[in-house]
Amino acid sequence: MPHLVILYTPNLDLPPPQGGTDMTALCRALADTMVAQRDEADKPVFPLGGVRVLAYPAAHFAVSDGGVAGAAAGYTGEAGSYAFVYLNLRMGRGRGTTVHARVGAALEACAKAHFATQLAQRPIGVTLQIDEGPEVFDAKNSSLHPLFSAPKLS
Amino acid sequence: MPHLVILYTPNLDLPPPQGGTDMTALCRALADTMVAQRDEADKPVFPLGGVRVLAYPAAHFAVSDGGVAGAAAGYTGEAGSYAFVYLNLRMGRGRGTTVHARVGAALEACAKAHFATQLAQRPIGVTLQIDEGPEVFDAKNSSLHPLFSAPKLS
Amino acid sequence: MPHLVILYTPNLDLPPPQGGTDMTALCRALADTMVAQRDEADKPVFPLGGVRVLAYPAAHFAVSDGGVAGAAAGYTGEAGSYAFVYLNLRMGRGRGTTVHARVGAALEACAKAHFATQLAQRPIGVTLQIDEGPEVFDAKNSSLHPLFSAPKLS
Repeated sequence: MPHLVILYTPNLDLPPPQGGTDMTALCRALADTMVAQRDEADKPVFPLGGVRVLAYPAAHFAVSDGGVAGAAAGYTGEAGSYAFVYLNLRMGRGRGTTVHARVGAALEACAKAHFATQLAQRPIGVTLQIDEGPEVFDAKNSSLHPLFSAPKLS
Repeated sequence: MPHLVILYTPNLDLPPPQGGTDMTALCRALADTMVAQRDEADKPVFPLGGVRVLAYPAAHFAVSDGGVAGAAAGYTGEAGSYAFVYLNLRMGRGRGTTVHARVGAALEACAKAHFATQLAQRPIGVTLQIDEGPEVFDAKNSSLHPLFSAPKLS
Repeated sequence: MPHLVILYTPNLDLPPPQGGTDMTALCRALADTMVAQRDEADKPVFPLGGVRVLAYPAAHFAVSDGGVAGAAAGYTGEAGSYAFVYLNLRMGRGRGTTVHARVGAALEACAKAHFATQLAQRPIGVTLQIDEGPEVFDAKNSSLHPLFSAPKLS
């Protein structure tokens, strides 16, 4: 942990003239934002080896009224179709409300910057939520974390 | 919010003779059902601009015993293979148990109607659950909601 | 219920020489593990007709520093790229901590066995978590469960 999962309408994967955007770049930007987060003691909020962002376009979807109000307002074509992006960060328990607010604000700013053009030019919803994992069992096995561990003294 | 995410076995995306069904139509029917929901005060439960349904077929899956009992019971071919559909609605907190029950019953009826033939002809599980979002951070940016706002007086 | 959802980086779907692995086989092994679980009274923890595993490769992703530390440590090519697997089991409430620990340990052992080569040869994170479903509404319709019911006396 942490992981950030993005669920979105597949029209955001179309080529840019049709309203799409670079979702891989968004994943990278969000991961970099997570890596950069610091807590009240100026320590990293998240371990570098545990940061990951996974994005999933839906195979089928329906949004709002399906486009009626958008068409009436003059939005046309794929680039004017309704889009939705849901970003959900699941992080471990116990970090406190200050960290939640700080991380949330940073991720929201990152997402808003990425979707600025979209928000200005089409009907799109961008929702970001952070959950504290309610897990009753938790097991991690990783050959990634050791890449970032301090070298052992021999 | 709200959003409804559907996770399902990919055999439901096969052409109808092989047991598939129109999942886009299901998304639309569920969204329409959500839009139609009313609370105790006869107000819409969900904002029209916030309703979305996203459906995801799994790339890999395993269900139950893999088909042994189904084959023994005479179910054959793709149209007789095990299928599963999981519908999860995440909605905001504080709406109360009456609304939960009403929305749940309406969505369940919609899903049961869509899968009536499937439920009669193959081994399939259709599970619907509603969660109240436990988020510790929540940020929404939308150019969709304004389509449904009352015009401002100038 | 229960269901186990696997979210993972798509490089694990590449052919084995490039670092991929058989995710369908993993789904089957996990389902078999779930079916085999017994509670304190030696009864099945999960109903056979309710076990399903669904796996989803991300369309876009970002992990950790994107590969910098891995490359510096000598990992090269697709087979040496960062990978992540997140396994989340959602099960019904009320089964108790002993069952959670037992199921979790069994599923973790299954996942570790499947990814043993990967864990030894590339930077990969494998995280397993169990959640107790917090649902406020729950409806199940199934033509799968009856396959495993005791025959009715006529």
